[in-house]
Amino acid sequence: MEDIKTYMQQTGQRARAASRIMAQADTAAKNRALEAIAAAILNGSAQLIAENTRDVQAARANGLDAASIDRLTLTEKTVRGMAEGLRQIAQLADPIGEISEMKYRPSGIQVGRMRVPLGVIGIIYESRPNVTADAAGLCLKSGNAAILRGGSEAIYSNQAIAACVHEGLRAASLPEAAVQMVATTDRAAVGELITMKDYVDVIVPRGGKSLIARISEEARIPVIKHLDGICHVYIDDEADLDKAIRIADNAKTHRYGVCNAMETLLVNASIAAKVLPPLCRIYLDKKVELRGDDAARAIIPQMKVAVEEDWRTEYLAPTLSVRVVANLGEAIEHINTYGSLHTDSIVTENYTRAMRFLREVDSSSVMVNASTRFADGFEYGLGAEIGISTDKLHARGPVGLEGLTSQKFIVLGNGQVRV
Amino acid sequence: MEDIKTYMQQTGQRARAASRIMAQADTAAKNRALEAIAAAILNGSAQLIAENTRDVQAARANGLDAASIDRLTLTEKTVRGMAEGLRQIAQLADPIGEISEMKYRPSGIQVGRMRVPLGVIGIIYESRPNVTADAAGLCLKSGNAAILRGGSEAIYSNQAIAACVHEGLRAASLPEAAVQMVATTDRAAVGELITMKDYVDVIVPRGGKSLIARISEEARIPVIKHLDGICHVYIDDEADLDKAIRIADNAKTHRYGVCNAMETLLVNASIAAKVLPPLCRIYLDKKVELRGDDAARAIIPQMKVAVEEDWRTEYLAPTLSVRVVANLGEAIEHINTYGSLHTDSIVTENYTRAMRFLREVDSSSVMVNASTRFADGFEYGLGAEIGISTDKLHARGPVGLEGLTSQKFIVLGNGQVRV
Repeated sequence: MEDIKTYMQQTGQRARAASRIMAQADTAAKNRALEAIAAAILNGSAQLIAENTRDVQAARANGLDAASIDRLTLTEKTVRGMAEGLRQIAQLADPIGEISEMKYRPSGIQVGRMRVPLGVIGIIYESRPNVTADAAGLCLKSGNAAILRGGSEAIYSNQAIAACVHEGLRAASLPEAAVQMVATTDRAAVGELITMKDYVDVIVPRGGKSLIARISEEARIPVIKHLDGICHVYIDDEADLDKAIRIADNAKTHRYGVCNAMETLLVNASIAAKVLPPLCRIYLDKKVELRGDDAARAIIPQMKVAVEEDWRTEYLAPTLSVRVVANLGEAIEHINTYGSLHTDSIVTENYTRAMRFLREVDSSSVMVNASTRFADGFEYGLGAEIGISTDKLHARGPVGLEGLTSQKFIVLGNGQVRV
Repeated sequence: MEDIKTYMQQTGQRARAASRIMAQADTAAKNRALEAIAAAILNGSAQLIAENTRDVQAARANGLDAASIDRLTLTEKTVRGMAEGLRQIAQLADPIGEISEMKYRPSGIQVGRMRVPLGVIGIIYESRPNVTADAAGLCLKSGNAAILRGGSEAIYSNQAIAACVHEGLRAASLPEAAVQMVATTDRAAVGELITMKDYVDVIVPRGGKSLIARISEEARIPVIKHLDGICHVYIDDEADLDKAIRIADNAKTHRYGVCNAMETLLVNASIAAKVLPPLCRIYLDKKVELRGDDAARAIIPQMKVAVEEDWRTEYLAPTLSVRVVANLGEAIEHINTYGSLHTDSIVTENYTRAMRFLREVDSSSVMVNASTRFADGFEYGLGAEIGISTDKLHARGPVGLEGLTSQKFIVLGNGQVRV
C-alpha cells in the first residue's frame, strides 16, 4: 500500500514536470509525435495483437462475459482504426495558444483570452485498449500530460500500446512522461490518482455507473464525468410522420449498447394512434421489447407494462419504454425529471415548439428532427472524443480537444495603471 | 441538527423549482426585477442602515476587528452603490439562450451551442452585505436560482437586503425562491449546502483562505473557488523604465488589501541597479516594508531579508518581497512555483519575451505592461463579478455572468439519422 502511494506520487511528479513541457510544445512537434505513434502502432501490429491475446485468454479463463471480451479484443482492423484515429487528431487544429475576443477597454488595456492546457489529466477506463490510444492522442494534442489507468483485464495490451506511444513521443523529442500508463492493477492506485491534488488537474472516468459514482464521491480533484444516457425522443402531434418513424427507429435500433441510444419514447396523445402502430411493427420485427404506459398499451397490446423504474433505466439493450403524453410541457417535464442530462430530441414541424424544446430541455445535447445517435464527437465535428459529459460545469456533451483546455485572460497594455 | 438538515433540504427543493422558472424567464422580466430590487433598496435605505446598525453594534460588542467592521458597515453611499450595481447588471446583455457556432455537418445536421444557466448556485461569503445584492443580481440575470449564506455578523443586514430582493422578484412576477438567504447562522447549514448534490449545482465560496480550503475539501458539489492572490510583476531588462516604475508602484500601493495587488516583485539582474533605487524610494516613502534576496539587498540596504516563506505569502498589506532573477526563464519558474494562478505581469519592450511570458505563465490573468490591479470584472468589461477563480476548470479569472452559465449542444435536423 505504501509502495503504491509512493509509486503514484512519483508518477504524478513526472506528469506535472512533463505537462509544463507539453504546454509549450509546438504544433509541429505534437503532430510529429501523433504520426510517429500511429506508425509505431501499425508497425507493431503483430506484437500488439500477441499481447492482446494474452489478455483475452486470461479474460476467458476468468469467465469474463462475451460483450466485455469483444470490447477487449484487438484485431488488425481495430489496430488500423487506432492508428487512423491518431492521424485524425494530428489533422485537427491545435487549440493551444488560440487568442480570442481581444478588446480595448476604456482604460486603454486590451483584454481577451488565450486557450491553454488543463495540465495533468487522469483517465480511468474500462478494458478497451483502443481508449488508450485515443486518450493519449487527445491529451497530447491538447498540450496536457496524461496518467492512464486502464482496466486490469487489458494490462498487457495497454502496456504494448503505451510502448508505441513512448516511441512516438521520443521520435518527436517530447517527454515520455507526457503519457504514463499506471503499471499496477492494484485498485489502491485509483484511490491515489483521484486524490493527488498537487499533481492531477482533472479526472475523466469512463465505464460503469457504479465506478463513476464511486470516483465522483471519493475524488478530491474535479471530475468530468459521464453518467448514464437515458435519452428520449418526443414525437409531437405536429411531427412529420416519416421523419418521426425514421428517427425513432434509428435512435433505438441503430446500436443498442451505446449511451446515445433512445431508452424512452414519448408520444403526443393526438398522434399516438397514428404513429405507434407502424413504428412498433418495426421494433417488434427487430425483437425490441416494448414496455408502455396504459395509453400506449391500449394502442399496442403486445407491450408489457412499464413501471416507474423503467423511466429511470438505461437499458443499453433492445428494450424500449413508451409513454403517451398530453402535450409538450408534459414531455419536457418527463425528460427533466427522468432523463440523465445526456441527449434528447423532438420531432416536430412546429417552430415554436421546437424552440421551446431546445431552450427548456436541460440536457447536454438537445435536438430537433434528428436521431439521438448523432451525439458524438465525430458527428459534431470535434474529432475524437474522450467521453460525453453529463456535467454542467466546464464541458457539457461530447468532450474533444477543447474540453481538455481552459481559457486564461490576457491583458496587453502600454504602461497602464489603475486610477 | 436534524432541523437544519430539513430546513436546508427544503431550501434546496424550493431553489431547484425556482431555477426551472428562472431558466425560462425572459430578459425583460429579469431586468424588471433588477430595477425593482434597486428601487426597493433605495427606498428602504433608512431601514437597511438601521438593520445594519444592529449588526455593527453586535460586532463591536463582540470585538470584531476594525477592517471587518468597515466591510460590514453600510452607509448611504454604499447603499446607493448596491442599487447602482444592480442597474448595471440590468444593462448587461442577457447571456442566456445565446446560440453560437452553428455549423452544418456532412450528415446534414447543423450543430452548435446554446448558453444556459447552471441551475442552483450556493454562495458562501463573509460579512459584506453588499455581496448579497451583487450575488443576487448576477444569479438572477444569468437565469439561476441562488442560495446565499452570508457571514453571521451581517445577518440583520442580509435579511433586510433579501427582503428588497424578494420585493423586486414579486414585482416582476418571478419566484421569490429564486434568491433565498439562509436564515440560520448555524454552521451546520454550510455543511448541508455544500453536499446537497440534488439541489445545488455549484458552490462559490468567498472569504478567507482557510474557509475556502475547508469548503473545497468537504464539498460534494463542484466549487468555483478563489484562493489567494500571490501576484507578481517581472521587470525585464528591456523594460521601459518609466512604465516599470509606474506599474510596479501601482500594482503594490494602489490598494494593499486586495487579491490583485502585487506581493512579489521580480527584477532582471541587468536592470536591478537602475530600477530598484527610484522604485524603492517610492515604496519607502509610502511606508512599504521591503524584504529582498541578497542581490536586491545589495542594492537597497534598507530591505529586510526575505525568507522562503515570503515567496509564498499573500501579505494583503504594505509589505513587498523582492527578488533579482537572472533571466525571463527564472522569473517564469518563480511565478509558476510560488504563485497562486491569479495574476502576473511582465514589463518589457521585447516582443518575443512578452509572447513567451503570456504563453508560459500559468495564471488566470497574464499581462504585459499593465498593472495587476486590472484583474477585475469591471475592468475586463464583464460587469460585476462574483469572484476571481483560481481554478482551471470552467471559469478562470474574474467570474461574471458568463461564468454562471454553461453551453449545451443543440442540433437542428430535418429528419437525419445515423447510417
